[in-house]
Amino acid sequence: MTRVAMLGGGNWGTAYAAIMADAGCTVRLWARRGEVVDEINTQHVNSGYLPDRELPETISATTSFADALDGAEIVVLAVPSQTLRTNLADWRDLLPKDAPVVSLMKGVELGTGERMSQVIAEAGEVDPDRIVVVSGPNLAAEIAARQPAAAVVAASSPRVRAKVAEASATAYFRPYLGTDVVGTEIAGATKNVIALAVGMASGMGMGDNTMASLLTRGLAETARLGTALGADPQTFLGLAGVGDLVATCASPLSRNRTFGYRLGSGMSLDEVIESTKQTAEGVKSCESILQLAESVDVDVPIVENVAAVVHEGREPKDVVGALMSRARKLETN
Amino acid sequence: MTRVAMLGGGNWGTAYAAIMADAGCTVRLWARRGEVVDEINTQHVNSGYLPDRELPETISATTSFADALDGAEIVVLAVPSQTLRTNLADWRDLLPKDAPVVSLMKGVELGTGERMSQVIAEAGEVDPDRIVVVSGPNLAAEIAARQPAAAVVAASSPRVRAKVAEASATAYFRPYLGTDVVGTEIAGATKNVIALAVGMASGMGMGDNTMASLLTRGLAETARLGTALGADPQTFLGLAGVGDLVATCASPLSRNRTFGYRLGSGMSLDEVIESTKQTAEGVKSCESILQLAESVDVDVPIVENVAAVVHEGREPKDVVGALMSRARKLETN
Repeated sequence: MTRVAMLGGGNWGTAYAAIMADAGCTVRLWARRGEVVDEINTQHVNSGYLPDRELPETISATTSFADALDGAEIVVLAVPSQTLRTNLADWRDLLPKDAPVVSLMKGVELGTGERMSQVIAEAGEVDPDRIVVVSGPNLAAEIAARQPAAAVVAASSPRVRAKVAEASATAYFRPYLGTDVVGTEIAGATKNVIALAVGMASGMGMGDNTMASLLTRGLAETARLGTALGADPQTFLGLAGVGDLVATCASPLSRNRTFGYRLGSGMSLDEVIESTKQTAEGVKSCESILQLAESVDVDVPIVENVAAVVHEGREPKDVVGALMSRARKLETN
Repeated sequence: MTRVAMLGGGNWGTAYAAIMADAGCTVRLWARRGEVVDEINTQHVNSGYLPDRELPETISATTSFADALDGAEIVVLAVPSQTLRTNLADWRDLLPKDAPVVSLMKGVELGTGERMSQVIAEAGEVDPDRIVVVSGPNLAAEIAARQPAAAVVAASSPRVRAKVAEASATAYFRPYLGTDVVGTEIAGATKNVIALAVGMASGMGMGDNTMASLLTRGLAETARLGTALGADPQTFLGLAGVGDLVATCASPLSRNRTFGYRLGSGMSLDEVIESTKQTAEGVKSCESILQLAESVDVDVPIVENVAAVVHEGREPKDVVGALMSRARKLETN
């Protein structure tokens, strides 16, 4: 039985812990809050995040990261993107020296413009060959209900990605192997911003053509940005690209889509923030992604317009306007 | 004012005629049935196909194809895929010798395995350089309601595609130029089959992860097939690929998705056919696409399973099973 340290007890961390337990691993889950830990250990549920899923007894929880990391053969990180660096400062010296370190996070660090794997390598002093990124159309609540889904497990080392895929494979969760860490991460971070744009269009009453047009042009600018940063363009056609983007944009469960929807339906930015329990990741990421795009001189008109709406008070209708008003040109330009 | 012959008065032909009229063209629309023609000419509506859209007075209709084609500067074809060859036998000698010929059709001919542009070139004796394919996330009812959408206008000749794009550009319809006729057609034909698979999963009660996973793996096999036939892989990442597939799979208006949904929810094949006014295109195309894939030795497991469900009585759950059961492997293989 592979021993796993899951650092983070939010909905995706908890759901992924359940996948790995179903795949036969023993999971030690670290959460910051004592009540989450107690509930997992005594009731086998994380009711604040994943209320409908009974967790296997092979998942136990702790508030001590040293305890979670002790003897771990695989370490999985599922904390908020913008606090990862601070967390790693505490965890760095306790990370096992030869275990794969898996990122479930989708964001780009504000200020540095770094991807999560870059932050892990830097702040966690982890050899990049040991870092794995998992991404795909994986809404946590559906995974928890054991509905069939596929994902990409991407890493530079064939041995490392195979080990993590093996430890995550169940009848309902199918890992495909990937080699493109950069593309997988850029796709994951940018999709939150595109979901904001799609949500806005939907909130304005627009239908599936507009949704699909925005999604596709959003994917095109994601692919341009990723390719400029060294990604394989084919990644954007895959589960971490199209797959994750489609699931997020289709789902009423998506926080980013919902945030955009409320803006599009006429609520002010302040009202939307007020009504939102947890800030949508894309609201923060759009700034860092825009900076990243500017640094490599790539045009990302949808990201740019979303950033202007959520940070400068531009009207949501301008996001759709930007899609439609540019001069006729080749689709691939 | 560019003079257009629209051959076909179904919902997409009628909606596209309205786009071109809004773009400033004069459209002469041929329809087989006299009552459709009379209604368009006297009431300016095609109530059987597009009941909610008042048509511009610059669209007139006729039951005479010679009349429709007389003096046309652009010819647009919007007839059922499997009757195109027969229609062209009648029309061939009347097609203007220098006008672009536009295909709005999404199918592969049974028996020959030919794409629509190949049938046009062959049976219509049209120079391939004059043939244009238009495709994208374009649900007719939403276009008719003037909701924003984008599309690809693909042709080998820059002059020809620019002419058709110019004649189709409105505030709500944004044509992008494309060069890849083969990829655009393969994407359009195969998406109907993938939509059947997605509908089946949805009818079985599966959520957005499963839908997005099937859609993505379906797109991957479409791209493999298209590339083997000479398409540009990037086409599948664009409006005619992802865009059209997403709009079709998301929309309750899609005939193919609905057909699959009914099968997935437990109706027998006979019951579904009984309950369906117009046969879903993917039911026919899955066979010809499968043959095409076999001819170039490309593995298309989702198309193969859909064909087995609709033609050999296999269970819809096997379509999802096929997605999940294959050995772990690189996503791009």
